[in-house]
This record gives sequence, structure tokens and C-alpha cells, in this order.
Amino acid sequence: LDRAMSATSINLAVIPGDGIGPEVIAEAVKVLEKAVAAQGVALELTNYKLGAQHWLETGETLPDEVLADLRTRDAILFGAVGAAPGDTRIPSGIIEREMLLKLRFSLDHYVNLRPSRLYGTVGSPLANPGEIDFIVVREGTEGPYVGNGGTLRGGTPHEVATEVALNTAHGVERVVRDAFRRASDRPRKHVTLVHKHNVLVFAGHLWKRTVEAVAREFPEVTHDYLHIDAATIFMVTDPSRFDVIVTDNLFGDILTDLAAAITGGIGLAASGNINMDRTAPSMFEPVHGSAPDIAGQQKADPTAAILSAVLLLDHLGYTTAARKIEAAVVADVESRTGEPRSTAAIGDAIAAAL
Amino acid sequence: LDRAMSATSINLAVIPGDGIGPEVIAEAVKVLEKAVAAQGVALELTNYKLGAQHWLETGETLPDEVLADLRTRDAILFGAVGAAPGDTRIPSGIIEREMLLKLRFSLDHYVNLRPSRLYGTVGSPLANPGEIDFIVVREGTEGPYVGNGGTLRGGTPHEVATEVALNTAHGVERVVRDAFRRASDRPRKHVTLVHKHNVLVFAGHLWKRTVEAVAREFPEVTHDYLHIDAATIFMVTDPSRFDVIVTDNLFGDILTDLAAAITGGIGLAASGNINMDRTAPSMFEPVHGSAPDIAGQQKADPTAAILSAVLLLDHLGYTTAARKIEAAVVADVESRTGEPRSTAAIGDAIAAAL
Ligand SMILES: CC(C)[C@H](C(=O)O)[C@@H](O)C(=O)O
Ligand SMILES: CC(C)[C@H](C(=O)O)[C@@H](O)C(=O)O
Repeated sequence: LDRAMSATSINLAVIPGDGIGPEVIAEAVKVLEKAVAAQGVALELTNYKLGAQHWLETGETLPDEVLADLRTRDAILFGAVGAAPGDTRIPSGIIEREMLLKLRFSLDHYVNLRPSRLYGTVGSPLANPGEIDFIVVREGTEGPYVGNGGTLRGGTPHEVATEVALNTAHGVERVVRDAFRRASDRPRKHVTLVHKHNVLVFAGHLWKRTVEAVAREFPEVTHDYLHIDAATIFMVTDPSRFDVIVTDNLFGDILTDLAAAITGGIGLAASGNINMDRTAPSMFEPVHGSAPDIAGQQKADPTAAILSAVLLLDHLGYTTAARKIEAAVVADVESRTGEPRSTAAIGDAIAAAL
Repeated sequence: LDRAMSATSINLAVIPGDGIGPEVIAEAVKVLEKAVAAQGVALELTNYKLGAQHWLETGETLPDEVLADLRTRDAILFGAVGAAPGDTRIPSGIIEREMLLKLRFSLDHYVNLRPSRLYGTVGSPLANPGEIDFIVVREGTEGPYVGNGGTLRGGTPHEVATEVALNTAHGVERVVRDAFRRASDRPRKHVTLVHKHNVLVFAGHLWKRTVEAVAREFPEVTHDYLHIDAATIFMVTDPSRFDVIVTDNLFGDILTDLAAAITGGIGLAASGNINMDRTAPSMFEPVHGSAPDIAGQQKADPTAAILSAVLLLDHLGYTTAARKIEAAVVADVESRTGEPRSTAAIGDAIAAAL
């Protein structure tokens, strides 16, 4: 499917957010615009002011009307949200939960797709990284992220705090099937389930049984299993072994930050929060946060945001434009010398190379 | 406190377990025996046959009488348990939960102590590891490990599986206080809390509030906070920043395997499951598993088991013997050339150097 010839515009929601979000998103939009224009496609942008700064000004996290409006767009490009670490005016985690996670849950972004690839060996903290090229398919709508829990006798010596992870056959099966589908399109055709089923028996066995059942639909795809603790070991001793990892929301959160670190840092790590049933727009965002300490200084690397735009184009079917940006990014990253460039200079270089 | 002069014997329970467990424990006992003998202390050993092999033969995991008997010992030295990966006769996780975790929970091993230290730069997969010398104080008796959860409509398309993490003020406070105490005895006097309080609000805030409260009792100790995902990044990009990490049962499981990997592998990683109130014996075990693939071949590195014996001596107050073994291990590890030695040869070399 290449939509380049059929559609003439992309109706794109842009949420730049806080900190370095606006800077990196400006470059992603710049590159995106140029790449699709070459295919005769226009970008129609709608900006949404959301995030910690917006909350400070208005007390709003994600109003229902804004969520409804976002639903009318083809896709969402998201920068980063989050207050400065020392800012005590913002209740901890409120923006993350009531805005970012609310978007992922409301728009049913059940595939949290996070590719990891090492370009050259530039920037890996590993002595012998080898070839790294895998994707993590992280479940995005359930597990320990559902916000189900409570506090009894809070603030007393008898306090009990619970967190309930909810896992459903519906939720697990659709993401596992997505992982196998993606694996069957890749040369190595291998899926690794990561969980901790020797301790988290109930959830773990649902995941394991589901992988075994779905695997039967994909005889060409091999699969194995790793406990999350063992997976982190392999991530630093033998990352080449991974092709497609499928895992739950929390283990995926942990593994993908580690994966970003070993492939040169979160300045390069892209992600898509994808609703594969297309019942709502999907959202694409760099894995990194808002990095308030370097905000507004043109020090942030926009590559992760630009690669997130590539995932966006792929999801919408603009594969020609996606491959062009990707090639320009790879060329740029592999030619990096360590000499610092401004956020805009990196965006300009990638746009110029299209 | 140095007990070397006062007590004349240590009443030690030994659970060699499965796979490489018996081989590495034999070396730990050899070294332990020699080190305490030099202080005029005898080792009284009681062997317990437990583990996957024992389950296959008897159907027993940890009978009540055995648990009661273990309670009469001064400490427990534990090898490893676990069936061969392909062995479908053993229900997954049953030995881990009904034996290993049952010991930790029944004997109230609330401090799961896991030191990480890089000897020389030997064996680290990191290109520039720097100096690594930290301890992880992992909570050992609650969190997502409590086994509280269930399955509704199992095996149907409407299955729901839950896992409930239980966290109590009692459980969190005692382990946090232990971490601060250990930090105040270390040169850098720094505690890092690792959690995910922006998502796991209820548990996360209990941990955060507790750290802040306990910190007031230790004005000489500084502290900071990292989300678990960010902590894994620092573990590979800047592990020197860590001094004492305090964290929950599951995050501690994940972080300590990663920590072992960056400091030369689980062949070196020791742990103590400690009941600091001394209401029951504490248990000391290498972090590694039973490694059935190399069992019985004298290929396993007994260093982790020997360093676990050092933690055991420290806990019982035999500090002179502990420091002697530690020095012998450090000398041995730092002189390693990569030339393979048998399990017994490593144990012999360390014993000879005492
Ligand atoms: C900000 C936070 C809620 C989020 C998560 O935990 O999913 C982030 O860490 C991520 O990985 O996108
Ligand atoms: C075997 C397993 C139950 C155990 C754990 O998860 O605690 C192990 O991974 C460990 O770290 O000691």
C-alpha cells in the first residue's frame, strides 16, 4: 500500500508539549512536510497546546473536547511532556497519567512500537555491540498501567498500597498477533516473549498460552521466551539475538529505555502508539522526555522525533516518503563526528538530504 | 562486632539444589570452612535435599517439617534451583514459588542485599564502565511477588488475569531504613530510590514518602530518585553514579541482573536474603540460576557462591574471616586471564590464598 498517489493531504495533529518538545517537533514537521510535498501531498497541521506548562496556566490536562477533536485527525505527532524535576507546583505524574497515558488508553493504542537499531557502532556504551536491529512491540493499554489500585490507612504506620495489573485475553492476543505479523515480514522471523511467569503466574501464563496459540498461525515464525531479568542481561551481552520482542506495558517501558541506551541513547529512539484497527488516530512520539534542563537551547537531538515521523508515514501508508526520510536519517547519523550541531542544523541537514 | 573469638561453631544449613548448585556450593563450603577454622570456629553442616530434582523424586517442594528444621540453624547457604528448560514434567515456576520464594517470605528475608562491584575492568560488556561499586537493597517480602492475583474465565476469549502488588508501610519502611543505614556506613553516603511513581501512584507514593521520612533520620546521607526505566539507562551509561539503590521486589530483580551483567556477569554476583531482626535465619545465594546446560561439568564459576558466603559471615559477625575471603576472591578475580579453570580449581585457588 502506497498512499502517495491517492491522498492529497494528511490531517495531522501536533502536540509539541513541554521542554525540548517544541524544538524537536519543529524539525520533524520540517522534514515531514518536505518529504510528503515531493509526493504531491500537503500537511494540514493543527497545533494543540497541552502539557505541564498548559496545566500550570489553565489547570487542564486533556479536556474531553480536545480529545474529541484529536479523534478527527489522521494521526498525532507528539513531542514530550513533563515539568521541571524540581517543580513542586505540579502533582507528580498527573500530566503523564491524565494526558499521555489517557491518550494511549482512550485512542486504544494497543501496539506501542519501539524499534531499536544501531547505526554503525556510533554511540553505543557497549564495547562489542555487534549488529543491533530489533523491534519491541510493547502492549499499550493494560497491565500494571491501568491505574487500578489504592491506599488504605494512608500516611499511617498501617498503610497498605496496592497496584493491580489487569491483563485480558483480548488485549494480549491482539498485540501478540501484531508481533508475529511484524516478525513474519522481517528476515529473521523470530519473536521473543518477555515476562516473568515464574512469579507473575496469572498474567504470565495468559501471555505464554497466547504466544503458543498465535504461533500456530505463523509456522514460519520461531519464538522463544525470556524472563525480564534475563532479557536485560542479554540486552547488554548479546543484543543481536533479538528480532521482535513482545511484552507487557511495564516490562516494555523498562526494556525500551535500556534498548535506547545501548543503541546510542534516547536521542535516537522513536516510537509509535498504534491503534492497528484504525478506530482512532495513532500517535507518534520520541521515547525521550521533555528534558527541561536543555530546553530552548537548541541542544536537543531531533532525530528521535524525525524517526517517529517515519513510523507515522509507514502507519498511514506513505511508504515512499518514509523510506526517503529514513535513508536521510541513516546517512546523517552514520556521518556524525561528535561535533555538536544545533537542533535546527540537524533537521536542516536531514531535510536537505531528502 | 567480631564473633570470631566468642562462638566456637556455626550451625549452617546447606541447600545445594539443582544443576550447578552442588558444584558451586562445594567450593563455597570449602573456602568457608578454611576461613573460619583459622579463627578457631567449626562449621556444623546440615544438608537439605530440595529443588526440582527432589520434587521429581518425591513431589515435595518445602515440607513444613523441613522449614521448621531450617529455622533452628544460624544461617542457610543456598545453591540454585530449577529444572532444565525443556523439562515439561515440572509445572513452571513451582519450585521458585513454593520453595525459594516460600523461604524468603516465611523467614521474613526483607532485605535482599545484592552488591555490585567491578574488579579491574575484567569482563564488563561496557566500553567505559568506570568504577562500579554499589549495593542494591531489594525488598524481599512484598510488592508484585506476593502471589496475589487470579484468573477469570481462563482459557476463553474473555479471560482476565490479575496480579496485585501489595506494599505496606511496615514492609517499605524497614527496608528503606536498612538502605539508609548501609549508606551511612559507606564513603559516598548516597541512596537512590528506584520506582515508577508516575504510573504506579499508590505504591510509588508510599515508597517516596517513606524515603523522605527516613531520610530525616540520616542527615549525613543524601538521596535521589529515578524511575526504573531511567535507572536502566544510567546502569549502562553511568553506573558509577550509584552507591546504595533501594527498590521494590520486582524492580530489584530486574536491576540486579542488569547490574550483574555490567560487572562481569552472574558468575560473580552474590546475594543475601536477610532478616535484619534475626527472628529467623538468613539465606545466602548466588544470583545465578541452576544452569542445567553446564551442570556436572566443573564449568561453573563458584565465585558468586563464595562471595555469598562472605555476606553470610558478615551477617553472623565473623568480619575477620569475611574480609580474608573477600581479599582472596578479589586477588583471584583480578588475576584472571580468561584461561578456563574448573569449578574446583577456582575454589582451591581461593582457599589456598586465605
Ligand atoms: C512518561 C511515562 C508515563 C511513559 C511510560 O511509562 O510509558 C514513558 O516512560 C514512556 O516510555 O513513554
Ligand atoms: C528464581 C526467581 C523467582 C528469582 C526472583 O525473581 O527473585 C530470581 O530471579 C532471583 O533474582 O533471585
